[in-house]
Amino acid sequence: MPSYTAPVRETRFIIDQVLGLERYSSVPGFENASSEMIEAILGEGARFCEEVLQPLNRVGDEQGCIRHEDGSVTTPPGFKEAWDQFVAGGWTTLSAPEEYGGQGLPSVVSTAMAEYLCSANHSFEMYNGLTQGAIASILVKGSDEQKATYLPNMVAGRWTGTMNLTEPHCGTDLGLIRTKAEPQANGSYKITGTKIFISSGEHDLSENIIHLVLAKIAGAPDNVKGISLFIVPKFLVGADGGVGERNSLACGSIEHKMGIHGNSTCVMNYDGATGYLVGEPEKGLAAMFIMMNAARLGVGLQGLAQAEVAYQNAVQYAKDRRQGRALTPELRDPDAKADTLFVHPDVRRMLMEAKAYNEASRALVLWGALQVDLARKAPDEAEREAAMDIISLLTPVIKGYLTDKGFEVAVNAQQIYGGHGYIREWGMDQFVRDARIAQIYEGANGIQAMDLVGRKLAQNGGRAVQAFFKLVAEEAGDAKGNEALASLASALERANGELQQSTLWFMQNGMQDPNQVGAGAYHYMHLMGIVSLGLMWLRMAKASSAVLSNGAEDRGFHEAKLVTARFFAERIMPEAGALRRKIEAGADTVMALPVEAF
Amino acid sequence: MPSYTAPVRETRFIIDQVLGLERYSSVPGFENASSEMIEAILGEGARFCEEVLQPLNRVGDEQGCIRHEDGSVTTPPGFKEAWDQFVAGGWTTLSAPEEYGGQGLPSVVSTAMAEYLCSANHSFEMYNGLTQGAIASILVKGSDEQKATYLPNMVAGRWTGTMNLTEPHCGTDLGLIRTKAEPQANGSYKITGTKIFISSGEHDLSENIIHLVLAKIAGAPDNVKGISLFIVPKFLVGADGGVGERNSLACGSIEHKMGIHGNSTCVMNYDGATGYLVGEPEKGLAAMFIMMNAARLGVGLQGLAQAEVAYQNAVQYAKDRRQGRALTPELRDPDAKADTLFVHPDVRRMLMEAKAYNEASRALVLWGALQVDLARKAPDEAEREAAMDIISLLTPVIKGYLTDKGFEVAVNAQQIYGGHGYIREWGMDQFVRDARIAQIYEGANGIQAMDLVGRKLAQNGGRAVQAFFKLVAEEAGDAKGNEALASLASALERANGELQQSTLWFMQNGMQDPNQVGAGAYHYMHLMGIVSLGLMWLRMAKASSAVLSNGAEDRGFHEAKLVTARFFAERIMPEAGALRRKIEAGADTVMALPVEAF
Repeated sequence: MPSYTAPVRETRFIIDQVLGLERYSSVPGFENASSEMIEAILGEGARFCEEVLQPLNRVGDEQGCIRHEDGSVTTPPGFKEAWDQFVAGGWTTLSAPEEYGGQGLPSVVSTAMAEYLCSANHSFEMYNGLTQGAIASILVKGSDEQKATYLPNMVAGRWTGTMNLTEPHCGTDLGLIRTKAEPQANGSYKITGTKIFISSGEHDLSENIIHLVLAKIAGAPDNVKGISLFIVPKFLVGADGGVGERNSLACGSIEHKMGIHGNSTCVMNYDGATGYLVGEPEKGLAAMFIMMNAARLGVGLQGLAQAEVAYQNAVQYAKDRRQGRALTPELRDPDAKADTLFVHPDVRRMLMEAKAYNEASRALVLWGALQVDLARKAPDEAEREAAMDIISLLTPVIKGYLTDKGFEVAVNAQQIYGGHGYIREWGMDQFVRDARIAQIYEGANGIQAMDLVGRKLAQNGGRAVQAFFKLVAEEAGDAKGNEALASLASALERANGELQQSTLWFMQNGMQDPNQVGAGAYHYMHLMGIVSLGLMWLRMAKASSAVLSNGAEDRGFHEAKLVTARFFAERIMPEAGALRRKIEAGADTVMALPVEAF
Repeated sequence: MPSYTAPVRETRFIIDQVLGLERYSSVPGFENASSEMIEAILGEGARFCEEVLQPLNRVGDEQGCIRHEDGSVTTPPGFKEAWDQFVAGGWTTLSAPEEYGGQGLPSVVSTAMAEYLCSANHSFEMYNGLTQGAIASILVKGSDEQKATYLPNMVAGRWTGTMNLTEPHCGTDLGLIRTKAEPQANGSYKITGTKIFISSGEHDLSENIIHLVLAKIAGAPDNVKGISLFIVPKFLVGADGGVGERNSLACGSIEHKMGIHGNSTCVMNYDGATGYLVGEPEKGLAAMFIMMNAARLGVGLQGLAQAEVAYQNAVQYAKDRRQGRALTPELRDPDAKADTLFVHPDVRRMLMEAKAYNEASRALVLWGALQVDLARKAPDEAEREAAMDIISLLTPVIKGYLTDKGFEVAVNAQQIYGGHGYIREWGMDQFVRDARIAQIYEGANGIQAMDLVGRKLAQNGGRAVQAFFKLVAEEAGDAKGNEALASLASALERANGELQQSTLWFMQNGMQDPNQVGAGAYHYMHLMGIVSLGLMWLRMAKASSAVLSNGAEDRGFHEAKLVTARFFAERIMPEAGALRRKIEAGADTVMALPVEAF
């Protein structure tokens, strides 16, 4: 059976020594986020994830969710009790605004906790993650009355949330949606249509489920410009603010999936259900994108989370399992007939790759969460804009690259188990199957790549990407003077150069033929991922190098950071040049063949 | 529901125009393998796979194998009837020697058929694949009496075979096995021990199951040098040559796996079972390796087979599903609200990658099968040796690289389906789960990499790898004069250079510290995979180019080959340089960290 230990030491290193969160104490909400406070929260959260949620992970996979004839859905055994504990512990309230019952803590803190939740139990975490996304949309776009009606119960975890975009005939292309909204005399709407792939769409964890649903108001343009967003609660809110009349919507079935069996993925039928417009009519997509962007960062984090728990178990197996002899005598155990897997260089390669990706991914996600906070709350307008630029640029990279690498790491961790990795009893296959969804949902990774090259690069005349290049170039330039960092800094400069050249190539060739950009988009997303993680490694190496110079207590921790940074530079960053060459090969061979050639 | 069409046109192009099989008609067994004969066999085989086996693929996945209380195992509904048809059609006999009832056809033919079998139904194909491997071992190492006793029934498909290596505490490291063989007065042995992960270990398809079991004879060295190989039949052979007394062995349980549910993966308990020594005592590993090597080529083929069927379904979905607008107006369908996925460059990238890998992998596997034939049967000793050198060198590459790429292609094919790819109903997740095993069994891919760099490179003073370099260099050099092939030939020359430099680096650094080689082994295997597939693309492009110059009828087919060859050169071969840089980074950062840093 797999186990999990929340990497609190790693998280704290990033928050305290890489982000230096205490420097932001003038930002609202950060004043209470002292190092001690965060340590206490993460320690408590770690225990909950390790002791309560992780043991339910396999139960969720094996038993899944069950839909009953009346359309109700039962979550796997133990999920309801765990949810009650989760709510009682206040874990749903971490980063929500205080006026709605939240603790108003920085996103950095709730993001750190979300990693642990997802490592321990991806399916369980989704019930909360989607609720937080729905809260974010209502906060920004909802009326004061809507906020007052829904947010306190959602923040408290008594009610949960969902997002309803996909229909049987459309996922990516939301212009095609058919769900209709008929205006009613009282200002509400009757919502009719079928939505599919609705995560947490129906379940028994919460008293009410607040569906955010995209639909077209009668008479609206039948394309992406005619979409509005509605709140459609499972139970209408009664006069007392509690649960009232049942709304006419139901779960028609639950999907049988490759993984995340503990989360109920529902077909939702809306049959003239009462809905309430959120924000302006026909601006629904923008409103939903608030939720989508938060969700995409959350999904990137899921990639890391599955990679982390898979890695931890692979490490344990590599320490325990003895098979074959080390290649060099000093690594051989004279008292045993075989050495542990750990001494074999190809096993070590996979563990080092996992370490190099996971630790830098964690830094990137937490730095991203800090940008989310700063974009909203930094006192200075320029600082808010800069933070928004960065997080907006990097959201598709965090979603796409981190989930691709998360899956790869999970697959390698399974590989270390050999045949046992393929046997369900060991649990490694669940990590692979659960990690796989993160590459697909909230916009498949190919869509992330198109968002990056088609929208994010060009936004505001390329302001964000230019700022990113400059940031990387400056930090790498500064570090080159430090002997401990020089070779890493040079590798990062080179990779940043490949990225800049690729960007230039897109500019020179994309106007003429946008397929030249589309054909390289995926590789570009990976290239920017490498540069982003490279930047994180530079920052971590810099922090550890400084700590070591000052005579740290836990030298081993910081020395490992320097070695892993070098590993990343030497054994992962060489991919940057190959990616650039692929991008510059252009679209010709990609687009040349007619459909009958396939 | 997924569908499958056997790529007979592709296979025939390789056999007729790339391998030029008719040139080998002086090799025994090849004289009957005329182009017309092969066409007839493959056409008939294709129909069986498409109509009988493919419809059972999902049944196998959903219903799996069931073990009953008495230890008997029922295969999924329909498997038994399909097996009977398979046997009646003579499909088990294709390449077996005529003296035991086989058709004596070249391995090339049975290999081509095995691809179709596995694409249609991986789990089903394994019952046959393991039998063929067992036949190969008995043919080479068995006594005349053993051959006469077992082979006719096995060739006919009335009896099936298995290989029993793994035990709970050892897989890779066979020196650790504990299964014991006690010599009996009559020359037989009593076999006692537990074997795990035994594919097709117990089932209801055949009248008898011939287990090939590794065990240590009492008193033998307790390491890899003390292993002997035994035939341990489920039923002892009666006086009439048919099924006699039940042997004391039983399936203790069947494993619950990530995929290949239609194949029974058994824990086999041998409880003083009667066994017969195959070949010499303590030479069991060499005997089993005959089966292993055949199996490894077969597993490489499974990687291709899953990739091919996944690709075919992704193509169909990309043609049917409409989502979003093409980036350029000429690709837009004016009569529809959205275009097919097929016009989107990132979807096309994934389809082209699949095409580029699959078509070259097929050529490599069939060329490999030809080497197997030539190594056994070529009239000239030098030719036999050269063929053995090549296939021995490339076996780990075919197993390791083709299964890694097969899995990647299957994952990408699933990705093209978006959310639907994650829903079991569509069947794409089965391809991913089934493809995954091929990276693990018959020696995990990391073991293949170590076999390549640790054994194959050095064998006979590097004779095989030097011959491979020379072959690639010569063919690339020759092709540079042909305008249609020049850029592909140059790319191949460059990649071959990266491979040679990496080999040199190993030689310069490996003596001092073998971990320097071990840490780069996996990347080296991939690098040799790229060069091997590049060579296949050069040959295919050369063949198609010649056909086009001669005024071919199906120009589209051959023009597509030239485009796909260029795609491979421009968009896959750039990885060669990055792999070399990773290899030359060496083992330092890979091996530096102590165990507690993980």
